[in-house]
Amino acid sequence: MKMPYENDSLSLHTDLYQINMAYTYWKDGVHDRTAVFDLFFRKMPFENGYAVFAGLERLIAYVQQLQFSDSDIEYLRSIGEYDENFLEYVRDLKFSGNIRSVKEGEVVFANEPLLRVEAPLAEAQLIETALLNIVNFQTLIATKASRMKTVAKDEVLMEFGTRRAQEMDASVWGARAAYIAGFDATSNVRAAKMFHIPPAGTHAHSMVQAYQDDYTSFRKYAESHRDCVFLVDTYDTLKLGVPAAIQVAKEMGDRINFKGIRLDSGDLAYLSKEARKQLDEAGFQDAAIIASSDLDEHTIMNLKAQGAEINMWGIGTKLITAFDQPALGAVYKIVAIENEHGELEDTIKISSNPEKVSTPGKKRVYRIINRSNGKSEGDYIVLEGENPNEEKRLKMFHPVHTYISKFVTNFEARDIHEDIFVDGELVYSLPSLEEMRLHLNESLDLLWDEYKRILNPEAYPVDLSERCWNNKMELIQRVKEKIEKKLGDNHTEEE
Amino acid sequence: MKMPYENDSLSLHTDLYQINMAYTYWKDGVHDRTAVFDLFFRKMPFENGYAVFAGLERLIAYVQQLQFSDSDIEYLRSIGEYDENFLEYVRDLKFSGNIRSVKEGEVVFANEPLLRVEAPLAEAQLIETALLNIVNFQTLIATKASRMKTVAKDEVLMEFGTRRAQEMDASVWGARAAYIAGFDATSNVRAAKMFHIPPAGTHAHSMVQAYQDDYTSFRKYAESHRDCVFLVDTYDTLKLGVPAAIQVAKEMGDRINFKGIRLDSGDLAYLSKEARKQLDEAGFQDAAIIASSDLDEHTIMNLKAQGAEINMWGIGTKLITAFDQPALGAVYKIVAIENEHGELEDTIKISSNPEKVSTPGKKRVYRIINRSNGKSEGDYIVLEGENPNEEKRLKMFHPVHTYISKFVTNFEARDIHEDIFVDGELVYSLPSLEEMRLHLNESLDLLWDEYKRILNPEAYPVDLSERCWNNKMELIQRVKEKIEKKLGDNHTEEE
Repeated sequence: MKMPYENDSLSLHTDLYQINMAYTYWKDGVHDRTAVFDLFFRKMPFENGYAVFAGLERLIAYVQQLQFSDSDIEYLRSIGEYDENFLEYVRDLKFSGNIRSVKEGEVVFANEPLLRVEAPLAEAQLIETALLNIVNFQTLIATKASRMKTVAKDEVLMEFGTRRAQEMDASVWGARAAYIAGFDATSNVRAAKMFHIPPAGTHAHSMVQAYQDDYTSFRKYAESHRDCVFLVDTYDTLKLGVPAAIQVAKEMGDRINFKGIRLDSGDLAYLSKEARKQLDEAGFQDAAIIASSDLDEHTIMNLKAQGAEINMWGIGTKLITAFDQPALGAVYKIVAIENEHGELEDTIKISSNPEKVSTPGKKRVYRIINRSNGKSEGDYIVLEGENPNEEKRLKMFHPVHTYISKFVTNFEARDIHEDIFVDGELVYSLPSLEEMRLHLNESLDLLWDEYKRILNPEAYPVDLSERCWNNKMELIQRVKEKIEKKLGDNHTEEE
Repeated sequence: MKMPYENDSLSLHTDLYQINMAYTYWKDGVHDRTAVFDLFFRKMPFENGYAVFAGLERLIAYVQQLQFSDSDIEYLRSIGEYDENFLEYVRDLKFSGNIRSVKEGEVVFANEPLLRVEAPLAEAQLIETALLNIVNFQTLIATKASRMKTVAKDEVLMEFGTRRAQEMDASVWGARAAYIAGFDATSNVRAAKMFHIPPAGTHAHSMVQAYQDDYTSFRKYAESHRDCVFLVDTYDTLKLGVPAAIQVAKEMGDRINFKGIRLDSGDLAYLSKEARKQLDEAGFQDAAIIASSDLDEHTIMNLKAQGAEINMWGIGTKLITAFDQPALGAVYKIVAIENEHGELEDTIKISSNPEKVSTPGKKRVYRIINRSNGKSEGDYIVLEGENPNEEKRLKMFHPVHTYISKFVTNFEARDIHEDIFVDGELVYSLPSLEEMRLHLNESLDLLWDEYKRILNPEAYPVDLSERCWNNKMELIQRVKEKIEKKLGDNHTEEE
């Protein structure tokens, strides 16, 4: 694509403050100290009981391409703030750290790390913005799509949102996220090509208008395509559209595969039932009725409750923009930093808002599967080095309301993260989208139904190990003492 | 960027049904008939009194690059639906039509064409999806940004949304749309580089955590940067953060440009007032207070009403996702099509929903400026060939409630569209972003304040000329008669 700028790279796709901090670290000689960051979100999107992680493929591609171009360096120079030696450092910079991540299609929950980045401080900081940009969007859309899948069950779901998506990347990566979460097709041909997603689509109202007649346009379409779905609501759905579709299907007989009709406006419950009758009476019991018209999981559920005769769903705006909550709000927080002695030291941000206090330390997340029923008891966050599989009897307790606790005995603890990058090298090979879809199904099978309903689901436990919890409390205490001391000092000075 | 697919182009960034329709047209030999399409939206976003058009630069680049790559053709072949001769036609296809569009930074309204495409039917159809994808998002964000500008007035507005944007394109094109609408800077360095927008940003909480202390981190930052804004809310805003910022500013004196402090959490009204006192008492009356924390036009207005001492605003999620209405919903409707005699024939879509009935015909849009006060009386849609400037006394009437009417005499009628492409050639040279910002200010100056308030603005008139209105009514009548006749025929057949 010819654009009014040249030599674009994604390396500058970061917030300026990341570069300014990197500069401070570099000037101070601490840019290569190891830092550990967690990427997580604090609230379940759409008040759903789980979220579906997506974005890893894009994230890997971003990290691999990380290399500042000549024009990037030239641009940074033009800001007039940085030493030439720093620009040289930036020019040579590649990601050299470690990333662990959950797989795409994994079910994830609030307040557990989806990704852990362990890298030289400046590098870990530089990639923050793009990582959040990627994971926030794709995880949001996969989750929204999964809610629709919960309601649509085995009926066909098609992603039709490109025209309403928030620019082009959102269209294609959103289509992919929806497919991971169980959608069956996308209307976006580029996304279909890029990701091997089945493409879907037949014709628009404009074709009926171009021929100024339902019958003529359907007939022309049928003469040029084997698979036919006719859009029947341009002039009058039941009186003109459906009869014209039936007429063309009869005339063409075996020369076409009459897959069905599409309704895009009006009372979908009523129209689908009446259209079903007409189709059945004409002998087209196998012709599907496809609906599309600002649908989401709530309208699908309502239409089903009304007995609508709809077999396939085309979903646009409400999915591709996550209309009812268009941002996930994942954050990326530093949890440990190497000190001058080369040791990792845990770090914490105290906030007046208790939910915003991060959990310090380099950690792992295990999913605790009860062997007796194959269901998950919850997720269990431990400090690096702890292995819950070595314990016979696991105490799981609520990280805030600590009196809520249970003991689990006959269990398997599965580390939900995989190594993605080790010392800057990609060590992970991406599964296919089909494998991700299967993985999501397996992940969902581990959850009790109570976590999966779309309204008021139970809260899935995400607990800390006792060591992890104690470490957090001690650090809070230490920081508070340090602040008190500091305030005492300030106070003394003023007197 | 190395991606797991090769030879990507944006030409397939379209819905499959566009290609399927193109195939039907091609098979039928009507693909080269001229069609006219209007791009417009039906409802004002955010219930604002106006919208700000943006997206033209991206749209031009998209149309210019339109050329299917080898792998695109290979992909289409793999679908197994299309003749080789059609694939040859697609391979050679370039956009050869005309596009007229309003300028970026123009104020626009519901139910008036923002763009008019006049092109061979298949081409006009193929570009629909991308045009909507681009214009829907950028116009939405520019409008949201303009609402914030209305409230912030001359205070500085900075776009900080990349991490919450819906993927990467949304970040950069959203930053650009916000800048057109009056924002002053973006945190996204790539967007800053691409579009020559001033970049903004200093440091994050993570830097304070990395040094485990406000004072140390501010001091390190000050030793490496001339312009300094310190983020003061990592541990305790008023007791530690602000005092540390003041201490460093005093120590560094003229060696830094102490621009101010940033508040990112807590009670921004209270904290800003208290911080202001501390800064003033220390002699830093010129240091700004910057706020960022899930802000939008409503919180800005509320904070101002409470007397918050905030001078600069960093806006993230609520702007970049247009959180309260994340889709504009613009559509692209065929309004005329060449018949077998080579004449353009107007076409209409009848809907059970009266607002969804399109206005047929090839049209122009004039803004009617009252010469006596320099303000706009409304927009006036005419059929191609009509020139309101030739009329002495213009009758403007409501297109639905036709009894609401007025006569305008001393006026100038300005065609709001420019020729962008003529016979496939780009004939428009893009203004700079600075010129677009100026143009928006001029456009807004034409509007009475009643149209510009963010709550319950007056509805700006978008009227049809008498000829245009009559043409619409006649076409509705003709289509209704045709339908009645058809229903009569069907009825007769059944008997």
